[in-house]
Amino acid sequence: MDVKEIDSKLFTPGPLTTSMTVKQAMLHDLGSRDTVFINIVAHIRQKLLEIADASSDDYTAVLIQGSGTYAVEATFSTSVPQKNAKVLIIENGAYGQRMIKMCDILHIDYDTLSFSETEQVNCKSVEEKLKSTKYTHVAVVHCETSSGILNPIEQIAALVQQYGSDNTAFIVDSMSAFGAIPVSLKNGLITFLISSANKCIEGIPGFAFVICKRAYLLKCQGNSRSLALDLYDQYQYMEKSRQFRFTPPTHAIIAFKQALDELEEEGQLIYPGKTTVTDCFRIGNIGRLYSTDMEILAKCIKDVCVEMNIDLPLKNVD
Amino acid sequence: MDVKEIDSKLFTPGPLTTSMTVKQAMLHDLGSRDTVFINIVAHIRQKLLEIADASSDDYTAVLIQGSGTYAVEATFSTSVPQKNAKVLIIENGAYGQRMIKMCDILHIDYDTLSFSETEQVNCKSVEEKLKSTKYTHVAVVHCETSSGILNPIEQIAALVQQYGSDNTAFIVDSMSAFGAIPVSLKNGLITFLISSANKCIEGIPGFAFVICKRAYLLKCQGNSRSLALDLYDQYQYMEKSRQFRFTPPTHAIIAFKQALDELEEEGQLIYPGKTTVTDCFRIGNIGRLYSTDMEILAKCIKDVCVEMNIDLPLKNVD
Ligand SMILES: Cc1ncc(COP(=O)(O)O)c(C=O)c1O
Ligand SMILES: Cc1ncc(COP(=O)(O)O)c(C=O)c1O
Repeated sequence: MDVKEIDSKLFTPGPLTTSMTVKQAMLHDLGSRDTVFINIVAHIRQKLLEIADASSDDYTAVLIQGSGTYAVEATFSTSVPQKNAKVLIIENGAYGQRMIKMCDILHIDYDTLSFSETEQVNCKSVEEKLKSTKYTHVAVVHCETSSGILNPIEQIAALVQQYGSDNTAFIVDSMSAFGAIPVSLKNGLITFLISSANKCIEGIPGFAFVICKRAYLLKCQGNSRSLALDLYDQYQYMEKSRQFRFTPPTHAIIAFKQALDELEEEGQLIYPGKTTVTDCFRIGNIGRLYSTDMEILAKCIKDVCVEMNIDLPLKNVD
Repeated sequence: MDVKEIDSKLFTPGPLTTSMTVKQAMLHDLGSRDTVFINIVAHIRQKLLEIADASSDDYTAVLIQGSGTYAVEATFSTSVPQKNAKVLIIENGAYGQRMIKMCDILHIDYDTLSFSETEQVNCKSVEEKLKSTKYTHVAVVHCETSSGILNPIEQIAALVQQYGSDNTAFIVDSMSAFGAIPVSLKNGLITFLISSANKCIEGIPGFAFVICKRAYLLKCQGNSRSLALDLYDQYQYMEKSRQFRFTPPTHAIIAFKQALDELEEEGQLIYPGKTTVTDCFRIGNIGRLYSTDMEILAKCIKDVCVEMNIDLPLKNVD
């Protein structure tokens, strides 16, 4: 039951191995209305816009308590009006399928465009779909963490612009890509970009965030099917008071500030690999993992394979 | 912007001043599917039942990511069927009023029984209300944190039993009471008891929990208006896999285990005071606060009052 002195390295897609300094940032109890805390929140919101290459005139970063799924649900719940909306969900894996489940539960009308979980979203098919039907919202996962496949969100964004109206919202679940895969919201084509604290920014789980096109968000009052997951309310309250509506995970937020500082120092970028086999396991490459950790991991995998009599083409591992 | 070496004491109703050992428990990154972590979660769920004096045959503790409000909303969303339900919300302050707001948003049919925020819920009025109408659910706040008033939940529970049917659910938001004010679920009269990590158990914010009557919860499949806030799903998934459906705040959970250990060692009980004035401020007495802290606080209040020429009957403060 007891926690070990030295933790195992986590080769998982979050929670992940964070730096000791990120964890140490949590050794403080700050009041949620304390000026120091309030300034940290403002700083984080500004930094997130910078990482997204988004102007603070056009975009705003809204933090929300809970895990990444909560932020995805909050985005659908808040952005999709309760009437006269039709969403296109483009999916090629588990996290896209979770969006479908959400829309079912929220009674949101949607179409699905599905691809195999071993292939990228195909832009030709997206184009045909967008030509055939007018959608109020289009949603896709950036990096399908279940397979590691990176979807072409820039091209999809351009298609949404071409075939949608001025008001068509483009929702991107960038949970496991944001902070690692460069993204630019400068052209204004992404309406909602979602990620969470414990992915590529390498913070501690406890909250997620949505980078929202402000003009769009401001039209979302009263849409939400939930009090807690109302992004509009969360935004308005924070703009007015600089505070959270409900108790924030203060420690995870202070740790996130530290993680952002370290990301800036490091300028590190990590690119997820792709796996296209069916029987497979996933290796997370986010978090405080360095090339030696990867070498040790490869060595361990080799040892296990030898022990199990599995022949693997791992030439470069001793 | 920087966090101080030594934190100020927090006289607030959460987040609160936690022990250094509780914070230090967060210096570990555990995978959410790690056996150590899974065992910690099981331990916490068991301990919560013990604190609630609930048998694990009849009750189960469900943890849910997010703040306390999320757990209250999850309870309404999951326990109230989408048709043929009628809730009675008994309220005497801000947190009871928040339940009303939730029910509005969730399209739940309800009646309200309101009391002034300076008085306790009156059982005679509750009895009349329950006599006059059949409710499927009755909800009340245990300690109205906005005023500190403690409501007579045992008496209300008995009335719900007397006038309700076998299936009437009794929901208690015990956010700021659980762990400090003794409660017993032995008689089975409370169906859902809600609290969160960063209140009287003195943990770190990031999750909340609901102690649910198992037989009732098992009938709640498909009720929830939300994927994330579905207590039934959260329970079923955890029972099957011992894991969370979505990324848990691992660090806050490890810290909570430590806080529970310390609560057990200390056997401490804290009773909130009542304030019945209109122009007032609230002083939190939960967290790592000892009598010297309270004496220093009283001294500070006296100094400020002297400075502001306010005459206060603070005879015993030097
Ligand atoms: C692309 C994507 N979407 C959504 C989620 C769900 O996030 P969480 O587990 O924090 O709810 C994940 C988690 O890994 C993810 O990778
Ligand atoms: C009685 C009561 N209910 C609900 C809440 C809401 O909890 P949270 O702020 O964690 O969402 C609180 C918070 O203090 C509370 O005291």
